[in-house]
Amino acid sequence: MICSIDIDENAASSHYEDFQTIDWQRDIARDRNRHRYIIRSKDNSYCSLLKSTHDAWAGWLCVLMVGILSGFVAGIIDIGAGWMKDLKDGLCPDVFYLNREQCCWSDNSSEFEDSIWSGHCDQWKTWPELLGLSQQHFPIFSYIVSYFFYVFWALFFAFLAASFVRTFAPYACGSGIPEIKTILSGFIIHGYLGSWTLTVKSIGMMLTVAAGLSLGKEGPLVHCSCCIGNIISRFFDKYGKNEAKKREILSAASAAGVSVAFGAPIGGVLFSLEEVSYYFPLKTLWRSFFCALIAAFVLRLINPFRNEHLVMFYIDYARPWIFFELIVFVMLGVIGGIIGNIFIKSNLKWCQRRKYTRLGQYPMWEVMSVTLITAMIAFPNPYTRMNSSDLIKLLFSSCGIADETPLCDYYRNYTNVNQHAQIAQAGPGVYTSVAQLFAALIFKLIITIFTFGIKVPAGLFIPSLAMGAIIGRIVGITMEQIAYNYPKWWFFQDACSNLGESCMSPGLYAVVGAAAVLGGVTRMTVSLVVIMFELTGNVNFIVPLMAAIMTSKWVGDALGKQGVYDAHISLNGYPFLDNKEEFPYTTTALDSMRPKLGDLPLAVLTEDTTTVGQLYQLLRSNNHTGFPVVVSEQNQYLVGFVTRHDLNVALNHSRKNDEVFDDSIVYFRNFTADEETRFKQYRTNQSSSALNFRRILDLAPMTVTDQTPMETIIDMFRKLGLRQVLVTHNGLVILLGIITKKDILLHIKECEEIRKVETSFLR
Amino acid sequence: MICSIDIDENAASSHYEDFQTIDWQRDIARDRNRHRYIIRSKDNSYCSLLKSTHDAWAGWLCVLMVGILSGFVAGIIDIGAGWMKDLKDGLCPDVFYLNREQCCWSDNSSEFEDSIWSGHCDQWKTWPELLGLSQQHFPIFSYIVSYFFYVFWALFFAFLAASFVRTFAPYACGSGIPEIKTILSGFIIHGYLGSWTLTVKSIGMMLTVAAGLSLGKEGPLVHCSCCIGNIISRFFDKYGKNEAKKREILSAASAAGVSVAFGAPIGGVLFSLEEVSYYFPLKTLWRSFFCALIAAFVLRLINPFRNEHLVMFYIDYARPWIFFELIVFVMLGVIGGIIGNIFIKSNLKWCQRRKYTRLGQYPMWEVMSVTLITAMIAFPNPYTRMNSSDLIKLLFSSCGIADETPLCDYYRNYTNVNQHAQIAQAGPGVYTSVAQLFAALIFKLIITIFTFGIKVPAGLFIPSLAMGAIIGRIVGITMEQIAYNYPKWWFFQDACSNLGESCMSPGLYAVVGAAAVLGGVTRMTVSLVVIMFELTGNVNFIVPLMAAIMTSKWVGDALGKQGVYDAHISLNGYPFLDNKEEFPYTTTALDSMRPKLGDLPLAVLTEDTTTVGQLYQLLRSNNHTGFPVVVSEQNQYLVGFVTRHDLNVALNHSRKNDEVFDDSIVYFRNFTADEETRFKQYRTNQSSSALNFRRILDLAPMTVTDQTPMETIIDMFRKLGLRQVLVTHNGLVILLGIITKKDILLHIKECEEIRKVETSFLR
Repeated sequence: MICSIDIDENAASSHYEDFQTIDWQRDIARDRNRHRYIIRSKDNSYCSLLKSTHDAWAGWLCVLMVGILSGFVAGIIDIGAGWMKDLKDGLCPDVFYLNREQCCWSDNSSEFEDSIWSGHCDQWKTWPELLGLSQQHFPIFSYIVSYFFYVFWALFFAFLAASFVRTFAPYACGSGIPEIKTILSGFIIHGYLGSWTLTVKSIGMMLTVAAGLSLGKEGPLVHCSCCIGNIISRFFDKYGKNEAKKREILSAASAAGVSVAFGAPIGGVLFSLEEVSYYFPLKTLWRSFFCALIAAFVLRLINPFRNEHLVMFYIDYARPWIFFELIVFVMLGVIGGIIGNIFIKSNLKWCQRRKYTRLGQYPMWEVMSVTLITAMIAFPNPYTRMNSSDLIKLLFSSCGIADETPLCDYYRNYTNVNQHAQIAQAGPGVYTSVAQLFAALIFKLIITIFTFGIKVPAGLFIPSLAMGAIIGRIVGITMEQIAYNYPKWWFFQDACSNLGESCMSPGLYAVVGAAAVLGGVTRMTVSLVVIMFELTGNVNFIVPLMAAIMTSKWVGDALGKQGVYDAHISLNGYPFLDNKEEFPYTTTALDSMRPKLGDLPLAVLTEDTTTVGQLYQLLRSNNHTGFPVVVSEQNQYLVGFVTRHDLNVALNHSRKNDEVFDDSIVYFRNFTADEETRFKQYRTNQSSSALNFRRILDLAPMTVTDQTPMETIIDMFRKLGLRQVLVTHNGLVILLGIITKKDILLHIKECEEIRKVETSFLR
Repeated sequence: MICSIDIDENAASSHYEDFQTIDWQRDIARDRNRHRYIIRSKDNSYCSLLKSTHDAWAGWLCVLMVGILSGFVAGIIDIGAGWMKDLKDGLCPDVFYLNREQCCWSDNSSEFEDSIWSGHCDQWKTWPELLGLSQQHFPIFSYIVSYFFYVFWALFFAFLAASFVRTFAPYACGSGIPEIKTILSGFIIHGYLGSWTLTVKSIGMMLTVAAGLSLGKEGPLVHCSCCIGNIISRFFDKYGKNEAKKREILSAASAAGVSVAFGAPIGGVLFSLEEVSYYFPLKTLWRSFFCALIAAFVLRLINPFRNEHLVMFYIDYARPWIFFELIVFVMLGVIGGIIGNIFIKSNLKWCQRRKYTRLGQYPMWEVMSVTLITAMIAFPNPYTRMNSSDLIKLLFSSCGIADETPLCDYYRNYTNVNQHAQIAQAGPGVYTSVAQLFAALIFKLIITIFTFGIKVPAGLFIPSLAMGAIIGRIVGITMEQIAYNYPKWWFFQDACSNLGESCMSPGLYAVVGAAAVLGGVTRMTVSLVVIMFELTGNVNFIVPLMAAIMTSKWVGDALGKQGVYDAHISLNGYPFLDNKEEFPYTTTALDSMRPKLGDLPLAVLTEDTTTVGQLYQLLRSNNHTGFPVVVSEQNQYLVGFVTRHDLNVALNHSRKNDEVFDDSIVYFRNFTADEETRFKQYRTNQSSSALNFRRILDLAPMTVTDQTPMETIIDMFRKLGLRQVLVTHNGLVILLGIITKKDILLHIKECEEIRKVETSFLR
């Protein structure tokens, strides 16, 4: 009997299994069909018209909602983290849920200062004060109590975060960006972008940031936004049921994530484009832009920074940079590239050890020890005790005339009101600060290596920026003092001729240094420049930033190919086909395809001889995601390709509706008129049956010849988002084999191994 | 005899004919081979090592030089245009080559003002003054003389520009961006990016801008930069001899062009990415970034604007925008989209008329009449008389306390020094200005429609910005007056409660309006936002700009699909496969391939039966760029593909070195051992000869099956940069036909025609 299989195209291929690669071409074709169907039935009724309108606006509506929710979640996280951060220091006894800044609002004395040098306000009580120990009478005791509470709260927060992650959502740890890159490149990780992950990651982020660990919440915010993107897309069939289309929403969501993390909508779009996205049509660019805008706008309405300037680290240097300084900025770039490389390599080594030794079995202990060490060492040094964001803000800022913090302890001349105050000669506070900053740098570099990778939500942006800012500020102060002491040197002469006045902005060096180190760690370029100037609200320093970031990237790339995210992707063995790297070998399709010489022959189906029994046997004997269909065992001319999922669905469907025997033949071609009548006769006497699966056959599988260079094939995989190509032999035109994404990644690795052996042999 | 053809791979396919499409895959493969060869021979000698180092840095060196030269050329053009522009007004008799601003430098009275309301300085003489007519004594006469000189110089400049273009470089006319888009998509237009075009366009730009025509020099600057990119790349074999690689340099050059045009390096990179580039690997992103940076830096060193702030239109509004204003900004976006559409449609109609009627035969007359009309109408209105850039600067600026220009003629309260001066109530000067601005808007809109397309260098950015700025300023002044007169309305209440003080910045409206109209005309989004805030040096107004630009794009797209550049590409019939548009039809490869039903069969070569005579016959009888090679006439199994150019080269080569007869067989396969001996015998008695062209055969041509959907094929053409695909039939696996880029464009047009007919039929 003949069974015409009618599979619901929508359900057919939306279900990929965990850790599979998606087929972009197929998914997008499916969406086009769906779209065409809706357009065609538009004029039928008002309901269809409504549906079609909804469909046209679904994308915009979806990113709108993603933007709003991203902004909202980011606002909550900022507020929560801000409150918990201050809990380590003390409490607002009157209204316990206020943080120090809010607690002090009624007190006018310290309105916009929240560094640890800001004056105390009466409403806010530190822990020693709450215990009745005033700092005047029991200075040492008070210090010890503060120390104790600092460490206690840090351990408590870290414990909470680690147990949440462990119990509810193991995927919530780390920064998430390597995984998001992999997912966006077309990989399926079920649950990685789920609501549990979102919840746990959001809470975990507040806790870990508040614990004072050397990590940031910016990377994880991108992960959170992508979770939101994934959750929202479930409400839209167009995106929820189509993995390829869903990735458009996820790209936009990652832009929104950066947008809210740094208040940098355009930087977010570029980040999404340059760093994380794989398939980025122009339509996605506009959507991402919109999503990032909405997210930034919502966050601004919530206004968690309570900041007039609406940017995180507002800078406003009075002096422009001078040409000579460019050399120093380039040197900062070199340092940034080197530091970035040291960080990546050491962190990777440590993560490998964690992965392959018994260390990985005790994640809770690891978190607790790292927290304990961080808190113990961080407290004595004011620059490590304070929150990393506050540190960056402090280092970026320039010293005002009346600024009396140690970092701004310059000898000033107050005698003449009309003369510029001379703030260039450093006092002892500055030298102490430089020493403390140097200690902070070493500490941060080492502890971040061990922190990035522990099982709590942990981002890298803020620690990298902080390290860079410290380096930059130290270099900046050095430059400033040289210029002050030797203003006659020819390269200072133009700008610094005005004796006694500072002609450099150490804050600018901090900004440039921060960008350089972050560039060295992540290897971002254009997006980083844009993020930096959206972060600082100043476009006048593009050239220094660009110079430092380019240098940092060059130096970084020269010392080690991969950025930190790519390194972690390799470490975890995700099937990510990098679209930045070139394939330098001269192999062809023949070299990378399966079956290899000596392997079993390729599992194929024939057009009209495979029986149901054989088919089940085939499906059981391997786990290939699809099978080529050829004319016959002897004439292996390619007819088409059929996926395992479709086969399963079609078989089950037939089972339900018809009597199917093990010897029923499965046809993949149209019946001839003769066969048609023959099967109609069969039908009457029920002796045997035949299935026609022509409908599920993909008649246009992507094929290449065995002589096709691997570069071309890799290009096709990258740009067209293929799941597999079939390899045929020209002239004979028979099917030879198949190449999947995993085969390509394996092949690349093999080629690299061979080259390594060759090079070592030659030496 | 056997001739082993050894073609210099480098020379083989670098020579495309005029108006051909390039084969990206092949060119890039060629570059990879070249690169591998250099790498492999690196260890051989110091010379090779040097070569390899040079090769590795060639890209950076090339873009460095492009950046430096772009900045330099832009600086010269700015200075030249500035001088000539002032020539219409008068002369600096002491040092004739100075423009008004430079002439007045010694005079302190008007140092940083160059609007027409700025006070006269004594060094600068207007034409009436030079003729001895003082304005006090002969006001009417003086006016008439000024008028005369204004029109005279405009006509003179326009005449010079038009004759230069006509005589030396016809390609130098227009903005050049549509052509550059086409060239970057892989089309060859010889001479379009040559040195003559560069020279004439540079000079022509100065002249046309100085003539006061309603056009800008920003688009043409992109063309100039691309010319520089093309010229410089000739010095590097890697780029000069490889069209695909050259396009990487051209992408970077176009970024540099925008960078120098607006002082917007990042905007330039995004413009290159979003608007003009086709093939944009990440490496190109970094190079573009570097190139744009260098160009901006060099321009800054030349500093033609003589502007402290280093941006063209520096804005610094004291007040932030309020939420209610967002609605007005969105409305400005709507207006921008509509105006953009009106402009595109009218301009296109006029250009069509020029193209298809006798009008196009008198380009000089057209230029002269447009110039005459422009100059005649522009002079009486101060807002059209002044240079467009100056107008934009004026409209963007906010009114200072002591500003006494008509646009800032507010009633002010000077009684109390401590109170904020009330500058919100408009005086008569403001109302006059609004009327004049309205007239200027109408005039500019109409004249620009006729100007864009005349045979002189002409860009669209500045006129669009000017129109938008006028609209925006008018709306802004209206809003300001409403808010001043009805400060109690609920939506003003928060911000405008302070009675008597202005709570709106009309300048901000001008900025938003300018962006909206430019967005409506060009349909740029992200890049435009970035350009706008680099142009104004202010990142605080991203949300208003984004809102207006998105709206403008939506409205524009709803009213008419294409932006002005795409419309001009269609008008000129360039083979540009837009990568923004979707292909909404369900056709397959079978429908678009050649030969169509009823056509002659496809011209193919066979593996081992084609003779030299047949080959010549084939080459003469058609102008295909390549031919598929099949097993035999009967068994049309595909073996490979060979290009016409390679065939010609190989044939000529054989002719030179061997005796070739018309009946010599051309082999495209390896000889068997048997044949090998047989042909060796032939060789001795010289009776016949055989050529083996196996080496020039591409064994891995891209193939698709006849059932492949057209969307997939179009995707392949776009993303892989194919020149053709071969169509085979699955199961039978014989060659059916071929699809080229032109076939696809034709097919798209046919489908659109059919749909139009269908829709009109249904109605």
